[in-house]
Amino acid sequence: MGNDRDLNRTRERIMAAGLAEFSAHGFAGARTDAISRRAGVNERMIFYCFKTKEGLYREVLRRKLAERATTFESSPDDDFVSRLVKGYETNCRNLDHVRMSEWEALAGGTRRLVAEQERRGLLRIEAAQLRRAKSRGDLPADADEQMLLMVSLALRLAPLAFPQITRLVSGVAPDDPKFRRKWGKCLRWVGKRIAMPANGEAPDQKRLTAARKSGNLGTETETSSIRSPQPAAAVLSSAGPEPK
Amino acid sequence: MGNDRDLNRTRERIMAAGLAEFSAHGFAGARTDAISRRAGVNERMIFYCFKTKEGLYREVLRRKLAERATTFESSPDDDFVSRLVKGYETNCRNLDHVRMSEWEALAGGTRRLVAEQERRGLLRIEAAQLRRAKSRGDLPADADEQMLLMVSLALRLAPLAFPQITRLVSGVAPDDPKFRRKWGKCLRWVGKRIAMPANGEAPDQKRLTAARKSGNLGTETETSSIRSPQPAAAVLSSAGPEPK
Repeated sequence: MGNDRDLNRTRERIMAAGLAEFSAHGFAGARTDAISRRAGVNERMIFYCFKTKEGLYREVLRRKLAERATTFESSPDDDFVSRLVKGYETNCRNLDHVRMSEWEALAGGTRRLVAEQERRGLLRIEAAQLRRAKSRGDLPADADEQMLLMVSLALRLAPLAFPQITRLVSGVAPDDPKFRRKWGKCLRWVGKRIAMPANGEAPDQKRLTAARKSGNLGTETETSSIRSPQPAAAVLSSAGPEPK
Repeated sequence: MGNDRDLNRTRERIMAAGLAEFSAHGFAGARTDAISRRAGVNERMIFYCFKTKEGLYREVLRRKLAERATTFESSPDDDFVSRLVKGYETNCRNLDHVRMSEWEALAGGTRRLVAEQERRGLLRIEAAQLRRAKSRGDLPADADEQMLLMVSLALRLAPLAFPQITRLVSGVAPDDPKFRRKWGKCLRWVGKRIAMPANGEAPDQKRLTAARKSGNLGTETETSSIRSPQPAAAVLSSAGPEPK
């Protein structure tokens, strides 16, 4: 028991040190001796616990993805605006993860994506959330869910991924509370406009809401079946292998 | 004359090789011997022409920024949607520049931004364009131009900066013509929604256009002066030094 607890603590320390090192230098640039020094453990413990540097990288990433899956599970019916704002706030608390994505982008398509299945699972959950929102009439009927997911990811990520651009445009760093407030406000403003019913389609939100309550949702939703929310974990585990 | 022409040709070859090397490895990772091999010139020519590796980096970046300033000058009154689509298309043709920005982001705030003055100048031109659009009533009265510029930059950049995410979401690479068509369409869709007059403010675009033609623009524009477009070069050269 004591040994198990010690080993768990060692694993946690290695994973925290790994996250910091992968964020600073990317997968290729990260060195296991530097990780062991950061963690204050013998370098051999990294290989004992995770087999390879890639094994550690995968676990660090899986942990981050599992954390995100949990936030989805807690609010499966968030609307577009809430997801946008919450997703940005999650990224603000996970700048190391943002940087890891950036290193990965620069490393290019030379190697298979680590934890690809988990990532696809997470994106699938969010795409399903957007589809449900569209079925409910909370997104315009002509919205392309796949592209809207890209829009959402871009707006949640870009100001944090390009701090030098954020500084040039706004005068402050992206982790400055002043910028975070302004960007949060902007995301709500933009998100509402994206989610707003299109002119001529259903211009009056109140009318739509009333129609929804009375069970009369109009042609755009009559044809689409409203899927019941599925727990994130179930979707994650059903994420089958995909072509690379 | 012959010598000048030869020297110009050598400079061009070094700059092209520099762009490729900075895109592949970032400023810190780029090696002048690798650049000289790519360019097929003696390494000493790099120092003769550009003094330092940073001198070359600055010139490569300045060239890219000058190209962008030219596209602005050719259409100073582009609306929000056109800028969004054109800016994305420009980025598609300049993936090396996108990657350089990413390396820079990862290098963090450890050093002063190269060509900062030119970048501020370019952003200032675009911010001025957004202000003019707002004055004309082509953007909502409650739009925050600074944040809208960040939104525009994010949407133009993110799918190209994170090819692995684009592939996971859409199934194809961001430079695939299929994705480029879909994203271009999405940018027009999103851009129109952002630029659309807000509910209750001026819900009927035709009415607003008619009002604009008759000179009656309502309270939102009566108070703001419509600035005449300024040539990009003038704004660029007036970009004074800024605190770092």
